[in-house]
Amino acid sequence: DIVEQLPALFLPQVMAGKKVVITAGPTQEAIDPVRYISNHSSGKMGYALAHAAQLLGAQVVLISGPCALKTPLGITKIAVKSAQQMLQAAERYSPNCDVFIACAAVADYKVSQVADQKIKKHQHQVSLQLERNPDVLATIAQQIEKPFCVGFAAETQDVAHYAKDKMQRKNLDMIVANDVSQQNIGFNSEENAVTVFWHNGEQNFPTMHKLQLAIQLIQLVAKHYEYKKSQQS
Amino acid sequence: DIVEQLPALFLPQVMAGKKVVITAGPTQEAIDPVRYISNHSSGKMGYALAHAAQLLGAQVVLISGPCALKTPLGITKIAVKSAQQMLQAAERYSPNCDVFIACAAVADYKVSQVADQKIKKHQHQVSLQLERNPDVLATIAQQIEKPFCVGFAAETQDVAHYAKDKMQRKNLDMIVANDVSQQNIGFNSEENAVTVFWHNGEQNFPTMHKLQLAIQLIQLVAKHYEYKKSQQS
Repeated sequence: DIVEQLPALFLPQVMAGKKVVITAGPTQEAIDPVRYISNHSSGKMGYALAHAAQLLGAQVVLISGPCALKTPLGITKIAVKSAQQMLQAAERYSPNCDVFIACAAVADYKVSQVADQKIKKHQHQVSLQLERNPDVLATIAQQIEKPFCVGFAAETQDVAHYAKDKMQRKNLDMIVANDVSQQNIGFNSEENAVTVFWHNGEQNFPTMHKLQLAIQLIQLVAKHYEYKKSQQS
Repeated sequence: DIVEQLPALFLPQVMAGKKVVITAGPTQEAIDPVRYISNHSSGKMGYALAHAAQLLGAQVVLISGPCALKTPLGITKIAVKSAQQMLQAAERYSPNCDVFIACAAVADYKVSQVADQKIKKHQHQVSLQLERNPDVLATIAQQIEKPFCVGFAAETQDVAHYAKDKMQRKNLDMIVANDVSQQNIGFNSEENAVTVFWHNGEQNFPTMHKLQLAIQLIQLVAKHYEYKKSQQS
């Protein structure tokens, strides 16, 4: 793909010297040694963001749940499975990072009692007890010296409303909303279309290749990151 | 891999003229539009069996759950997601087949009420109601003119006991047991070691490449298939 060949030479290095931590992919929550709960995230958007941030000059740590994607050159990848493991990696790598982008589709719930042995299927009906997972992004965003925090909202209805609510509730600087009910974009697709919200503005990005979109998103992040820093100093 | 290049020319065509249906991979059971329950089957053993059966002369239909593997040349692949879809495909393709090999790790349970929209995570704890899926292999094996039926048993404990019980209970001709608690073989590995049971015998296959093992398994199936047919006529 021609877009992926874009040499960093031709892109303004707006992220030069910045440390960026990005989470990507789904998480897997074990039920027993063979079964798990997961979701349809392909990891493509998160990997594209990692690639884009690196092309724009950043030092990138990519914390990734299980997915079949190739790690872009020059990126440090930390492979995790569960939400708990993703949180641990995020807490380890986020201190002193400038930007934290939570693109992973972290499982909201984990199984309360993970079985040591494969569960036998004696019963006709069973009830699986689930409990809330830790919120990786909210945990990072509530730190006192928090990085510039970017979240994602994958929704099937009322996308703008849920996205803005999530941004406020989790103390984020920016949120990227996409409507996963649209079959041709988002999950598992090569393309995506999103709307980005920040405290007093929003911007639409029409359907385009995920790497192209990722470059535009990182450029937007860089602009708002610099603005926020100028306000703080 | 040199083993995968083995031309059918050098293998006795013990399955010539036989129709074989093989199920492979995991199934995915939807929770809502983005979440699902699945298992760690990579599909490698099932795909290797399909490849082996084809190399040994059979006409092969491969019914596969979601997995990232390439379909071997000359094989008809039917892609499915849920156990229900796998059963429909099996019922469609098994009549008039000679051998039915159920290698898929079919989800034992499905979610009772699949949500149309992404479930919101308001509650701290939730209970997911599950109910038994149809049993694909048992359904095929209880047909009056049933094909030669081969099952798989992936267990983490007491492997031989569960495997033999499953063979009897489901009316199978043969069962292939592997101990998935052994990390270096089985799920997601390139190699596997199994024990095969039939009504009055068993055979151990030590750790080897899955395609090599698949060829030996199909040869064993061919032998027992011919024996059973000779007994019936």
